[in-house]
Amino acid sequence: MNKFLFCCNESDHKTAIIGDEDFRHCIKVLRYGLNDPIQCTDGRGNHYVGSIAEIRKKELIMEVQEHHVTPPRKTQLHIVIAPTKNMSRIEMMIEKCVEIGVDKITFLNTKNTERKVIKIDRVMKIAWSALKQSHQYVLPEIGEMVSLKNFLLDASANDKKYLLHYDEQAGHLLDASWSENNIVMVGPEGDFTMEEIALAKETGFENKILGDNKLRTETAGIVACSIFNVINR
Amino acid sequence: MNKFLFCCNESDHKTAIIGDEDFRHCIKVLRYGLNDPIQCTDGRGNHYVGSIAEIRKKELIMEVQEHHVTPPRKTQLHIVIAPTKNMSRIEMMIEKCVEIGVDKITFLNTKNTERKVIKIDRVMKIAWSALKQSHQYVLPEIGEMVSLKNFLLDASANDKKYLLHYDEQAGHLLDASWSENNIVMVGPEGDFTMEEIALAKETGFENKILGDNKLRTETAGIVACSIFNVINR
Repeated sequence: MNKFLFCCNESDHKTAIIGDEDFRHCIKVLRYGLNDPIQCTDGRGNHYVGSIAEIRKKELIMEVQEHHVTPPRKTQLHIVIAPTKNMSRIEMMIEKCVEIGVDKITFLNTKNTERKVIKIDRVMKIAWSALKQSHQYVLPEIGEMVSLKNFLLDASANDKKYLLHYDEQAGHLLDASWSENNIVMVGPEGDFTMEEIALAKETGFENKILGDNKLRTETAGIVACSIFNVINR
Repeated sequence: MNKFLFCCNESDHKTAIIGDEDFRHCIKVLRYGLNDPIQCTDGRGNHYVGSIAEIRKKELIMEVQEHHVTPPRKTQLHIVIAPTKNMSRIEMMIEKCVEIGVDKITFLNTKNTERKVIKIDRVMKIAWSALKQSHQYVLPEIGEMVSLKNFLLDASANDKKYLLHYDEQAGHLLDASWSENNIVMVGPEGDFTMEEIALAKETGFENKILGDNKLRTETAGIVACSIFNVINR
């Protein structure tokens, strides 16, 4: 079996259709032909192993020989993060978090958030690419930008909710307790304001730290994701 | 006190000299003037707080009012990593590891290492920038590229030595035991060869994993660094 995992658009579990960039990569770049073995995922937990049955102009049909299902993770991590001014930093964070393991990412508009617009299409492309590269089958949900206030209004009372902000009194995220659904909120480059922190605490967020070093926003997102995944493995 | 930490070239602990880019940043960009409060570090554990006493053409003299010393960490992490083909990935890894906490980085030439040359000057610049940004005072040592064989020959018998390579039998790095000096070795994008793994094991390296997900080289470096620092905090 070759090492590439493609993304498929549709599948009835007997055949799968691979189009767009993955089609071009498979046929034009890698030059696979009829009957060559390939594998693909729909990003919804389905992993198909099979071979190329038909090559059309803009898509290929794969005959499914094996179908494996990856269920959603039992302990889910939702990272809520204020995007950095420099887009490449937030894109790198998305790539790293998807590789390491994250279930949902939401972009947060706070008082000090410098970037107010996120191109979700571009972000989804990066997430797909990291998913395929790390051979995973469940694409994280990526939400549009939301204001801190609206996000806090919608946050479920049942979730474990942590806020990363340096505070001498706060405990380390490593010692946090986790439930089925968990939110870790990361502030902007200029940090949360005192009002924002107070508001988040009122709605059930607990303040945690990642250690003594002052980390950049995107680094805090990656380290939080890494800690969550080593604890909930 | 303003938030910027500058790099100083020399200091007798009474005055410190800030030159080059940091001088330009301080005087030309931030437009600080005589008597303005500033702080700097020599990257060798010294943190100076004081004010601008003299502005010359290409450097400034700072009068030291406070001198704090950060000793080397008691539990040291040496990351030994094969550089990625894409230089920006390894640069990002260096930035993140310095922020999170690392004491030494060495670049490794293995059979599958695609990048055989590293510009140490450029790498040092990134490390300095991350050090200042995260307000730390001990610059990690960054070594020239070395072949795996030579590195193994020189590795001390007293160090704890771990090798990251996916193996069903291997335990998680989170459960590793650490001593004063610790080495974590990360392979290239095409992984270590079986011979290389055997050779490393012969010289005392123990195989560890970072979980089930297949991580890119630079992500493995960051996650290993993050795990080391949460355990040895």
